[in-house]
Amino acid sequence: MIASASFFAQRGWLLGTCGNLSIKLADHPVRLLSTPSGKDKSRLQEEDFLLVDGQGQVVGDPSRQASAELGVHQGIYARTSAGAVYHVHSIFNNLASHRWRSQGRVRFAGIEMIKGLAGKTLDDVVHLPIVDNSDNMDQLAANVAAGISPEVDAVLVYQHGVYSWGRNPDEARRHVEILEFLLEYVVRLESLPTGC
Amino acid sequence: MIASASFFAQRGWLLGTCGNLSIKLADHPVRLLSTPSGKDKSRLQEEDFLLVDGQGQVVGDPSRQASAELGVHQGIYARTSAGAVYHVHSIFNNLASHRWRSQGRVRFAGIEMIKGLAGKTLDDVVHLPIVDNSDNMDQLAANVAAGISPEVDAVLVYQHGVYSWGRNPDEARRHVEILEFLLEYVVRLESLPTGC
Amino acid sequence: MIASASFFAQRGWLLGTCGNLSIKLADHPVRLLSTPSGKDKSRLQEEDFLLVDGQGQVVGDPSRQASAELGVHQGIYARTSAGAVYHVHSIFNNLASHRWRSQGRVRFAGIEMIKGLAGKTLDDVVHLPIVDNSDNMDQLAANVAAGISPEVDAVLVYQHGVYSWGRNPDEARRHVEILEFLLEYVVRLESLPTGC
Amino acid sequence: MIASASFFAQRGWLLGTCGNLSIKLADHPVRLLSTPSGKDKSRLQEEDFLLVDGQGQVVGDPSRQASAELGVHQGIYARTSAGAVYHVHSIFNNLASHRWRSQGRVRFAGIEMIKGLAGKTLDDVVHLPIVDNSDNMDQLAANVAAGISPEVDAVLVYQHGVYSWGRNPDEARRHVEILEFLLEYVVRLESLPTGC
Repeated sequence: MIASASFFAQRGWLLGTCGNLSIKLADHPVRLLSTPSGKDKSRLQEEDFLLVDGQGQVVGDPSRQASAELGVHQGIYARTSAGAVYHVHSIFNNLASHRWRSQGRVRFAGIEMIKGLAGKTLDDVVHLPIVDNSDNMDQLAANVAAGISPEVDAVLVYQHGVYSWGRNPDEARRHVEILEFLLEYVVRLESLPTGC
Repeated sequence: MIASASFFAQRGWLLGTCGNLSIKLADHPVRLLSTPSGKDKSRLQEEDFLLVDGQGQVVGDPSRQASAELGVHQGIYARTSAGAVYHVHSIFNNLASHRWRSQGRVRFAGIEMIKGLAGKTLDDVVHLPIVDNSDNMDQLAANVAAGISPEVDAVLVYQHGVYSWGRNPDEARRHVEILEFLLEYVVRLESLPTGC
Repeated sequence: MIASASFFAQRGWLLGTCGNLSIKLADHPVRLLSTPSGKDKSRLQEEDFLLVDGQGQVVGDPSRQASAELGVHQGIYARTSAGAVYHVHSIFNNLASHRWRSQGRVRFAGIEMIKGLAGKTLDDVVHLPIVDNSDNMDQLAANVAAGISPEVDAVLVYQHGVYSWGRNPDEARRHVEILEFLLEYVVRLESLPTGC
Repeated sequence: MIASASFFAQRGWLLGTCGNLSIKLADHPVRLLSTPSGKDKSRLQEEDFLLVDGQGQVVGDPSRQASAELGVHQGIYARTSAGAVYHVHSIFNNLASHRWRSQGRVRFAGIEMIKGLAGKTLDDVVHLPIVDNSDNMDQLAANVAAGISPEVDAVLVYQHGVYSWGRNPDEARRHVEILEFLLEYVVRLESLPTGC
């Protein structure tokens, strides 16, 4: 997780202490390993990570606080088979959320990179849902939960960022990389004279 | 400060020996730690930094010279509760200063990243002031001082760069990262067919 | 090959475990050294590489599988004097494949960088063929094979990526760098008011 | 010089073994230290550099060959007070050479970064000359020599790259960084709705 956080930070997807990553360690009872709130994600160390239970409480250390957005992660774990949830902010995922907000989703079709999403072939059309952002974490968690679609392991939040997951940390990281590629691609296509 | 300078330099925000960073070490009497003038900021070492007093004189070594723009920093310290002032040049902060010069400010609204600015929520609209540039350092310091607004801990100088501050070095660095993200975002939005 | 994979990965051309590199070690019988399928290319180690024969079987270890796209490489080796074949995905090679798909090729003329392609001078006009993508590896290999032109050591696959080769690994790497430069250049030209 | 080559290579300005750097070590007789021809500039070592005399011959080792473009450097040394000449290729310097080719020069005015060019103030308007490219090195050297202007220590070659110099290596490097910033800036301005 440190390697992934460092990789994402280097690409500018975790600027300004934003973004957060979590991994599910156990189901019964639920145990998540999570990045801390408000820390610079390019300088994380092992002891910065938090062990969190199903209610969002830090296990064994009530003085420390999990990321305010962990409720969004928990809603995703509850509704999917995710083993890891990664959340990153990028210029291009923000641009895409703005460009296609009125359609409520970003459409990907006929692009090789789609095959990097679990279970997809080149013939699949993938719609990435766009949901509203909110300052209220319960509302945001509800928005993201309502946006979850069987078509893709990710939800895009308007002018905020993407939540993406996978059955394990490697798949979650691959999904983040694939989606950021696809989002930058379709945004840049818009600026070309013959953009689709 | 070396880490931040190196990070900013790596992102291309301190090219050509431009840009400068300072930290306030003490108030009575005023003591600032400042980057030197004319040095390549990607190759700074501890002994390159200067200890400067309230009049801009290097403490204990009159033979060395502080950055010509330190007067701008001092004007900011005098009018705010800044504990650190960071000044960076970037392609996108220059582009934004040009695009919205006639309005005198850049407007940010409804973007999650706004929450990374001290005290802001998603509902806050933030206007980043744009002031004129000048070759005369007293004039530039006066322009920046006149531009300071309670709405945001930063002033953008026309086709020059951004001065941003925070109560401490970590907050100043976070503000720089957040503002560069927001500025690149709103500039790129302008090139999209349905840009706001 | 590790150095080239790491260099390409750093530039974002091998994201999401995509892309693959191969080198021809011997002709009789054919022996290729190939990157493995489904691995993160930024974290390759020596033991990850596969020794593959002319039929695409891993030599000495039938339990391991070569990249599904190795058939494309073998078709290129069979029809050219390539000593190395590198395949990378990038935003800009995807954009170019979309922009000039109807012409079936991307045209480069009068650009100094053309001289970095083997045997070319500044006066040469180079047409990079664009072929259809396919989920069927035999079909994709056939498409790429049919696209091979004496004009340039590369074929661009629609919304997929570029296959580029050279007589040796250094030349293959140089061709990838040159073509990515040229493709980004002609795509960005399109956004300029007086684009060609 | 290794540090500068590595820095430029990292920014993508020396791709595909292109670009070359030289430093003047002595005047009587002329001795230049030069990057070798055809080498990957991101992997240079001390022994790769060549000691070259006023006629472009490698001193003490006639078996090694200087860069084919060294004649351009020699023409610059002969006509200016340059102590170092750096030549880099970039997407944005190519784009600028195309955008303003008919005017024969790129115009910079009112941008803070201009002050990073030797002897310039914010009030100076700087015109960077654009000259024709040529496969013939004598012709190219003549084109660049004819383009040299007292206004700026650099000449831009059409769809090729920039030759920039300074009285010493640090100044030459600063000029490269400043000019690449300015060129990217004015090219990106063109894509904004209210570009100048």
